[in-house]
Amino acid sequence: MSASEKIWTAGLVVIGDEILSGRTHDKNIAQVASWLQVQGIRLAEVRVVPDVIERIVEAVNTLRARNDYLFTTGGIGPTHDDITVDAVAEALGVPVVIHPQARAILERYYADKPGGLNEARLRMARVPEGGELIPNRMSGAPGIKLGNVFLMAGVPHITAGMLDALTGTLEGGAPLLTETVGCWVPESEVATLLREVEKAHEKCQIGSYPFFREGRVGANFVVRSTDADALQSCVHVLCEGLGELGHDFTPGGI
Amino acid sequence: MSASEKIWTAGLVVIGDEILSGRTHDKNIAQVASWLQVQGIRLAEVRVVPDVIERIVEAVNTLRARNDYLFTTGGIGPTHDDITVDAVAEALGVPVVIHPQARAILERYYADKPGGLNEARLRMARVPEGGELIPNRMSGAPGIKLGNVFLMAGVPHITAGMLDALTGTLEGGAPLLTETVGCWVPESEVATLLREVEKAHEKCQIGSYPFFREGRVGANFVVRSTDADALQSCVHVLCEGLGELGHDFTPGGI
Repeated sequence: MSASEKIWTAGLVVIGDEILSGRTHDKNIAQVASWLQVQGIRLAEVRVVPDVIERIVEAVNTLRARNDYLFTTGGIGPTHDDITVDAVAEALGVPVVIHPQARAILERYYADKPGGLNEARLRMARVPEGGELIPNRMSGAPGIKLGNVFLMAGVPHITAGMLDALTGTLEGGAPLLTETVGCWVPESEVATLLREVEKAHEKCQIGSYPFFREGRVGANFVVRSTDADALQSCVHVLCEGLGELGHDFTPGGI
Repeated sequence: MSASEKIWTAGLVVIGDEILSGRTHDKNIAQVASWLQVQGIRLAEVRVVPDVIERIVEAVNTLRARNDYLFTTGGIGPTHDDITVDAVAEALGVPVVIHPQARAILERYYADKPGGLNEARLRMARVPEGGELIPNRMSGAPGIKLGNVFLMAGVPHITAGMLDALTGTLEGGAPLLTETVGCWVPESEVATLLREVEKAHEKCQIGSYPFFREGRVGANFVVRSTDADALQSCVHVLCEGLGELGHDFTPGGI
């Protein structure tokens, strides 16, 4: 495999009892996944773990060893249940230190707010030693970058801002391209076609996603490839096949 | 620890490239988590893995060994990318067989539909040997129960029906009770209070979930316990503390 064919991957550790209790619906998996695709990096695995140091350490160490990048979301706020910095420091075998620039940011941010930069807020200036800051334009507390590990907020719109700040700074491969074809057909009627078309296009994967809408069944077929020509050819053959079976199809999906 | 204090836990493996690509927003984590809580079972960890046999096997075997129960969602449909049954059979070291009752269900379901029970649809009657069926009233294909392993659909409303069919059939402990107190305060102003109240109530955990709404910051404080008295006492002390610091609070959350 040549360097240009390397597949870049990332792992994601979603940290927080609120996700595991069902109280909060996670929005970061989809957001991080979509952003990574544009950077040419594939999200290879996600683990959702509780606010427990050992479980965070285990997930971080497993996924950072397996992938080019490791992201975490959640647990970098000011309260007692925010333990991500401590866990990642333990995983990396480094101490936790106060980052002078983070402290300065927080001092400015809280200068005119009741309570000022109190002890709890100062927790948000703590980083695993060697960590650099990821800007956060939404609130005071920055994210943290250390080697191939990226610590992001749990609140989705703050995470979005941090991802935006990182855009274009990570080395990746060719972005994964996708094209969708929708069809009002039960996927089980065209399963053989899907398997054969995928088999004939080794650079492509086809995902089949059924739905029930307006009292009818249908499916979207998503073709994925890093090769634009292979993708077009695969989509073309798939559409031809659907037509030959007598099914109307909708380019772009339903 | 007495038998009545045992904490029952479950792991969840979410299977599917469509979640890892960001194309589909997962709804099953929150749905399974909330349902488990009512059964007195705690969701201890979630792993989202791609449509790759080895990754599914690894996640299933790790999480089923660690927990009382193991659930999977996704990959039990009729198409080539539906490989959950094969992966779980491999994880459990049993062959894949056609379940006669599942076959009968599918024969009935597809009797009046174009194509009838074709080869692809018959895939949905395959189970790891020894598997029992979980009824699916929404579409033909059943879920599968085998020991402490439960294979559910990926489509959330079908999963909901399968969970419904399982309600009350799993042994669990005391359900985790929660009470929420909302407050228009930056969580960093009351972080010390939260930590001290939690410390004083060892049977309770307090989660702090900040938000930005209507141009103001606030937070919901979620107190969790399996002990109703401890929960009430903790909420009472928390509210008193918020009042003493001069903050109005909203029982039930904001």
